[in-house]
Amino acid sequence: MNAITKEVSQANAELRKTAPLVHNITNYVTVNDCANALLAIGASPIMADDLLEAGDIAAISSALVLNIGTLNRRTISSMIAAGKRANECGIPVVFDPVGAGASKLRNDTVKEILEQVKITVLRGNISEVSFVAGLDVTTRGVDASAADGNRDAAAVAKAVAEKFGCTAAITGAVDVISDGKRIAKIRNGHPMLSKVTGTGCMTTALVGAYAGANRDAFVAAAAGVASMGIAGEIAYEKAGRLGTGSFHIAILDALSHLDSAVMKARGKLDEA
Amino acid sequence: MNAITKEVSQANAELRKTAPLVHNITNYVTVNDCANALLAIGASPIMADDLLEAGDIAAISSALVLNIGTLNRRTISSMIAAGKRANECGIPVVFDPVGAGASKLRNDTVKEILEQVKITVLRGNISEVSFVAGLDVTTRGVDASAADGNRDAAAVAKAVAEKFGCTAAITGAVDVISDGKRIAKIRNGHPMLSKVTGTGCMTTALVGAYAGANRDAFVAAAAGVASMGIAGEIAYEKAGRLGTGSFHIAILDALSHLDSAVMKARGKLDEA
Amino acid sequence: MNAITKEVSQANAELRKTAPLVHNITNYVTVNDCANALLAIGASPIMADDLLEAGDIAAISSALVLNIGTLNRRTISSMIAAGKRANECGIPVVFDPVGAGASKLRNDTVKEILEQVKITVLRGNISEVSFVAGLDVTTRGVDASAADGNRDAAAVAKAVAEKFGCTAAITGAVDVISDGKRIAKIRNGHPMLSKVTGTGCMTTALVGAYAGANRDAFVAAAAGVASMGIAGEIAYEKAGRLGTGSFHIAILDALSHLDSAVMKARGKLDEA
Repeated sequence: MNAITKEVSQANAELRKTAPLVHNITNYVTVNDCANALLAIGASPIMADDLLEAGDIAAISSALVLNIGTLNRRTISSMIAAGKRANECGIPVVFDPVGAGASKLRNDTVKEILEQVKITVLRGNISEVSFVAGLDVTTRGVDASAADGNRDAAAVAKAVAEKFGCTAAITGAVDVISDGKRIAKIRNGHPMLSKVTGTGCMTTALVGAYAGANRDAFVAAAAGVASMGIAGEIAYEKAGRLGTGSFHIAILDALSHLDSAVMKARGKLDEA
Repeated sequence: MNAITKEVSQANAELRKTAPLVHNITNYVTVNDCANALLAIGASPIMADDLLEAGDIAAISSALVLNIGTLNRRTISSMIAAGKRANECGIPVVFDPVGAGASKLRNDTVKEILEQVKITVLRGNISEVSFVAGLDVTTRGVDASAADGNRDAAAVAKAVAEKFGCTAAITGAVDVISDGKRIAKIRNGHPMLSKVTGTGCMTTALVGAYAGANRDAFVAAAAGVASMGIAGEIAYEKAGRLGTGSFHIAILDALSHLDSAVMKARGKLDEA
Repeated sequence: MNAITKEVSQANAELRKTAPLVHNITNYVTVNDCANALLAIGASPIMADDLLEAGDIAAISSALVLNIGTLNRRTISSMIAAGKRANECGIPVVFDPVGAGASKLRNDTVKEILEQVKITVLRGNISEVSFVAGLDVTTRGVDASAADGNRDAAAVAKAVAEKFGCTAAITGAVDVISDGKRIAKIRNGHPMLSKVTGTGCMTTALVGAYAGANRDAFVAAAAGVASMGIAGEIAYEKAGRLGTGSFHIAILDALSHLDSAVMKARGKLDEA
């Protein structure tokens, strides 16, 4: 077993032991799955998005997750307030720029959040992270564009990590994690994960859980991404043939049984 | 096999081939199911309801679905802006007037949307569509009223289709579709569908998917309604005795396996 | 069989017979589960949170459920308006002060609702209900704090019931219900219920369903709490080993099969 696989396995054990409270300001499409994924992996979720309490809730949490999936003006200010408070308190902030590149509002909001909040981990697909990197993107809704399929994800992740002093996690057929120095590739997962809404959002939430339990953002990002990939593989084996509804439920089942032994046995992580 | 059954089966094949992006401004109760139903049938969902991006997202989509299930003033203006932009771009608009007749706000909003946006397909139960038709309705929440059970759905659908130059789809024990000229009846479905929230909303979303892939609104409406009916039958066979939770998941499983062969074999469509 | 077990079993039969319409102003995390739990137990859900219709919808409903899980300023005024209208119409109001004690906004809102709306049943964990009772609480997000584990739930429930002239239901390892005079303890349930988000919210919604069908708030509260406990036990037996995703679905399955015979056979209720 290589070093990064060992590190993410240990991170899982730490997460299960510490049960971090994870504050999410996220979208109303996949929020229930995010809460259940957090519970399944051993964290405790809290969702609070009003400006009058976003900062207070961030301050009592172990990690903050910001997700712009169903962006609206009311919660943008809450995200920034919560992010600033998390920064003041030294709490990790995980950011999912869902659909970056798809509308001016999303683009402006991504820029504003990145200007005002120090991000610990950025998690997105290659289109979204390329937008954050300042590269031209052709976005088709909230899914990764085929046109972006040929980009070098490792180069994009490294560039974003250096630009913002964060860890970048680009998920796709092969996931790439970089903190600007280290680069990990993860070959877990299954194509059927793209047929259930929220698997990306859940991945980001899981990264938040690991970040809330572990000081190392690079390891937390790799652990969160690997957890969803492994859960997707197990879910496919158990329920893939039944259809996307059963597969969806089986992802949560697999997350709830995911422990460091499973991560050691199934993790396909490599460090460049 | 009759002509309409053949048409809806072909529509399914086209939908699976074209994978249309469907923009939904919908309610927070059933939005996750709508997204997963769209993915299951082969479409790509996007939910975006802020006024600052609703038009932009509509413009890059293949269809727009408006659903007033949890109506609020913030999103009414977004619905109208997105609808107008869709009209300008020639993108079909599918409208679900959830709970029309239940409150002044809903009634006023339905009228405003119909005045300002050209609707391609209207999908509702007999109470809701009767309200749109200008008939007196006795509404009991968001469910169809028993008192409306004796209305002639075909006459109501035809009247609404003619009044608004759209296709009307009235779902019930027997579903009725009319574009003012053609009238189709669909005898698929199962009573247990009324025991899971969102089966109506999902039906509307599916109509949006078909409309995004097929120029013929009448066929799209029939295909969307038949898809949910057939999925409900299959789900009942697989999981009905287990309870409403398993039945719910089995609906999504069935949608994800639904192809033109299943629609040909199971479709109970007739054209008057 | 003791008197309270008999009463809750009869309440289930009445609920299934009357199918009350239950108006929910609740959070976007667990709203789908609340709607499906209400349908499963035989009620009819409606969610409507805009100030322009909240009162109108409350007026046509049999019960109103207020839940501050994802509190925001827009819906606080809707909750109060709907609550006042429900009071005027003699409709029971069930209140779930999710996360009371966790932020100033939540604390202020709980106080405001209790000042302006006459509550029929208050349902929460020991932390939340202790806050309402005016006791010091140490809150960790929306979960019950370990520090509150040693409080005497029966004393807290009784105090709150007397203070507000309502029935208080405190859920935990042993659930306690009091209307100030009667005190019931319920020993149904399973620890895995805390690993699925929304089991508390669903319990509150079920109490709303029973309250909408039964004039006796104490019995309605006990019936709602016992229903979730029994469903949790059955779900654990059927699907607990599969994981939290399957367990979640099995809860809804069990609720949909829950009848007065099951409640008589499985209910572990005692009256002090």
